[in-house]
Amino acid sequence: MPHIALNSEEPGIRGLLLFRPETGRALSELAEVLLRGPGTLARGERELIAAYVSALNDCRYCSSSHSACAAAQLPGGMELVEQVRADAGSAPISAKLKALLVIASAVQQSGLQVSADDVAQARAAGATDLEIHDTVLIAAAFCMFNRYVDGLATNAPRDPARYAAGAQRLISDGYLLPAEPIPGQCRPDG
Amino acid sequence: MPHIALNSEEPGIRGLLLFRPETGRALSELAEVLLRGPGTLARGERELIAAYVSALNDCRYCSSSHSACAAAQLPGGMELVEQVRADAGSAPISAKLKALLVIASAVQQSGLQVSADDVAQARAAGATDLEIHDTVLIAAAFCMFNRYVDGLATNAPRDPARYAAGAQRLISDGYLLPAEPIPGQCRPDG
Repeated sequence: MPHIALNSEEPGIRGLLLFRPETGRALSELAEVLLRGPGTLARGERELIAAYVSALNDCRYCSSSHSACAAAQLPGGMELVEQVRADAGSAPISAKLKALLVIASAVQQSGLQVSADDVAQARAAGATDLEIHDTVLIAAAFCMFNRYVDGLATNAPRDPARYAAGAQRLISDGYLLPAEPIPGQCRPDG
Repeated sequence: MPHIALNSEEPGIRGLLLFRPETGRALSELAEVLLRGPGTLARGERELIAAYVSALNDCRYCSSSHSACAAAQLPGGMELVEQVRADAGSAPISAKLKALLVIASAVQQSGLQVSADDVAQARAAGATDLEIHDTVLIAAAFCMFNRYVDGLATNAPRDPARYAAGAQRLISDGYLLPAEPIPGQCRPDG
């Protein structure tokens, strides 16, 4: 049961975004730009980094949700996602993605754990500065989302089918909350 | 020296917001609404939570910057901020703020560390559900900002006067990046 009285039955972060739309808007914009916005990492790769960090943080809601999003957008599907979560070093992914996951795993412990050698290895495997930046920020952002979701003890369904269905919605509609017109503010299409 | 080549000499998160304005906009909106937007915790109290968590994460840039912002907005000034950072339990702050800092300190370790008892104590000391929510999210957000700033090894000045001057700018102008008109999009004042 959540630690605070929410205004919906929505699980995980969905209930929190609805409870506090002022922060919900900023958080959903961050997820949208990080996981789906312009960038050279594939969307499935970015979701894989999110799922990997969320699993390291033992956050069932976020790891299930982003594993489903990664599985639906990577050729290897859920089998690959599970291999990466179990042992990223031996999973059949590119050397570049492996090196980025090493950086993500350091960030999960502390920003101070990311070494110049970790970054040099990623660069040697072909990662650009923007990809290194985005990996650090995705990993850091999920250290926030995981703590937010579990720190308020939100509900996390156990049925994988619910996460698979949620992933399909996120892949087609994205992370942004439905727009609400703000009085006095003109709209992009207005 | 930062792990990646930034496009400015700006220290800490300022250099990162300028490097990647797409994520910078979402991050600065989050900081603005969390630390300065509508809410019943005083701005100085919210900055104190941010400074406290950043110190627990050993992030020199963020703990210095938000300590300066808290000191400038709390009657006890920097002496109070230093007392809280050294031992929040014995510092001369309200029982409610002490209980919220206990929650923030749990979040810093893991969302799963926040107990029903921690939340009950905060509520008994007068904290509302919204204040408990905002405390968890501020603490979680600084677990992100700290990892972002240190994970990319950004520069953190040592001179306290620089942070004090930065705090005055943040208090008068806020956290939002200067607006850039987006082609084809109308502006709120347009």
